[in-house]
Amino acid sequence: MIRPTRTGGADELIAEIVAGVEEVRSPQTEAVGLGVPSVVDFASGRLRSSVNVPFEDLPLRDVLAERLGLPVFIDNDATVAALAEAFDGKRIGVDSLVMFTVGTGVGGGLVLNGRVYRGKTGAAAELGHTLIGLDLTAGAPPAADFPQAGSLESLASGSELDRLAQAAAAAEPDSALGRRAAAGEEVGGPDAVEAAFAGDQVAIDLIRILGERLGIGIASAINALDPEVVAIGGGASAAGELLLEPARRTAFAYVLPGVGTETEIRLARRGPEAGVLGAALLAATEGA
Amino acid sequence: MIRPTRTGGADELIAEIVAGVEEVRSPQTEAVGLGVPSVVDFASGRLRSSVNVPFEDLPLRDVLAERLGLPVFIDNDATVAALAEAFDGKRIGVDSLVMFTVGTGVGGGLVLNGRVYRGKTGAAAELGHTLIGLDLTAGAPPAADFPQAGSLESLASGSELDRLAQAAAAAEPDSALGRRAAAGEEVGGPDAVEAAFAGDQVAIDLIRILGERLGIGIASAINALDPEVVAIGGGASAAGELLLEPARRTAFAYVLPGVGTETEIRLARRGPEAGVLGAALLAATEGA
Repeated sequence: MIRPTRTGGADELIAEIVAGVEEVRSPQTEAVGLGVPSVVDFASGRLRSSVNVPFEDLPLRDVLAERLGLPVFIDNDATVAALAEAFDGKRIGVDSLVMFTVGTGVGGGLVLNGRVYRGKTGAAAELGHTLIGLDLTAGAPPAADFPQAGSLESLASGSELDRLAQAAAAAEPDSALGRRAAAGEEVGGPDAVEAAFAGDQVAIDLIRILGERLGIGIASAINALDPEVVAIGGGASAAGELLLEPARRTAFAYVLPGVGTETEIRLARRGPEAGVLGAALLAATEGA
Repeated sequence: MIRPTRTGGADELIAEIVAGVEEVRSPQTEAVGLGVPSVVDFASGRLRSSVNVPFEDLPLRDVLAERLGLPVFIDNDATVAALAEAFDGKRIGVDSLVMFTVGTGVGGGLVLNGRVYRGKTGAAAELGHTLIGLDLTAGAPPAADFPQAGSLESLASGSELDRLAQAAAAAEPDSALGRRAAAGEEVGGPDAVEAAFAGDQVAIDLIRILGERLGIGIASAINALDPEVVAIGGGASAAGELLLEPARRTAFAYVLPGVGTETEIRLARRGPEAGVLGAALLAATEGA
């Protein structure tokens, strides 16, 4: 069961999580796994910060364990999605996998040398904050709020596709998106995906732009990590080949010759459910 | 003994390497370790490609082993430098370390989970080809030759410092670099470092620009890998704090809150000799 979260404060979101777990819980439920779009200290189950949800410094694992009376395991949502993508049914079945989840933001997850990679303090794999589009002529511009201008998240997320779709609707009144806006309907990323599948060239170009920007982030990840697999998941991956083709073409054009010679760039096999499956796997493997 | 390499073709460079080894070889020499600025398939000892030396597809390990009659171990030069920086005298003594070598190009080396990280095909850690400065308004621009415009190597290498120094000498005739050029002398990166140490503001600003650009690449590496150490080596690291301070300030400004909370950004402790020491360590640890 996948349901949207309502927006509100941290307390409301915690209450929603608890209610959701109670709804599906059975007497056989032994543990709870959770993926959150936050910087997570995996070892302590503590959240350190978030960009797209109202969780700041918070011992979420312990809060939930106390409310639910069950063991709880928490990690970053894209990290658990990477675990799901790397899992072959029994264990992690790839040497190395880089996961990009393109949703409200852009999340990242890493499996390296056959293990989930979390870094020195458990907070690694924030690939959405890779900087790809800064004007560095006179050194680095002053840093700003997150997502930073020039970051992969600011340039290639579902939120950016919303903005691109709205701008295209205004600039191209004869396009499918423009007609939708003229009819007084809201226009967003999912409308661009729908119009692109229906063959609208303006919408296809928006998906291409997003895919090419994503491809730049993928190229840097391949140059750094020479992985076996790069998987693209999250809501925007519903655009399928329309997103994958420009991402793959751009990535391999920018990869250094001799690197990534065995890298497969593909859509997430688990689709938008990779995060849910990965959270369950986290509880099953860590709680075993 | 460190000596510059002459420029020439692959055969001349191989002959130089063989002559250099023969000169220092003793009856106690059991193996040879080599770091090369190339994409290396570590397992087979084969080079796949290079940007700054004339080595393309080449089984260099076997070629040298036959000429020298000794076991030879070959890896990327920045990767062996990372090994040297991570070594505590007996073993790898850090959880994770990201190495940037700022010389003619920008090299990268990775130690992750206490081991040298080489990726699926042995060619990982090409951090100089991280893309940081592209104009992505209309998607990704067409890819070009390496180093790609917008890459860390094209924006923050010693070669780029040469170019910045020459441009500043022409634009600022009253600066130390401008006076040097007016006297008919060649101007390059090392002159900028020397003038910066002597207090020349134009030169200090050039080192700052290079450091800030490097800091952007470091920020992305920290967001991705949450490492214990980021070490900056290579010839341009001779600028010391003049380079390190802007790199560190910029990197931490762009790192997502909660990531890299224990990361130390420092100059390479082994200085320009990190590569030589790392190559010897490679032979000692792999050949043991």
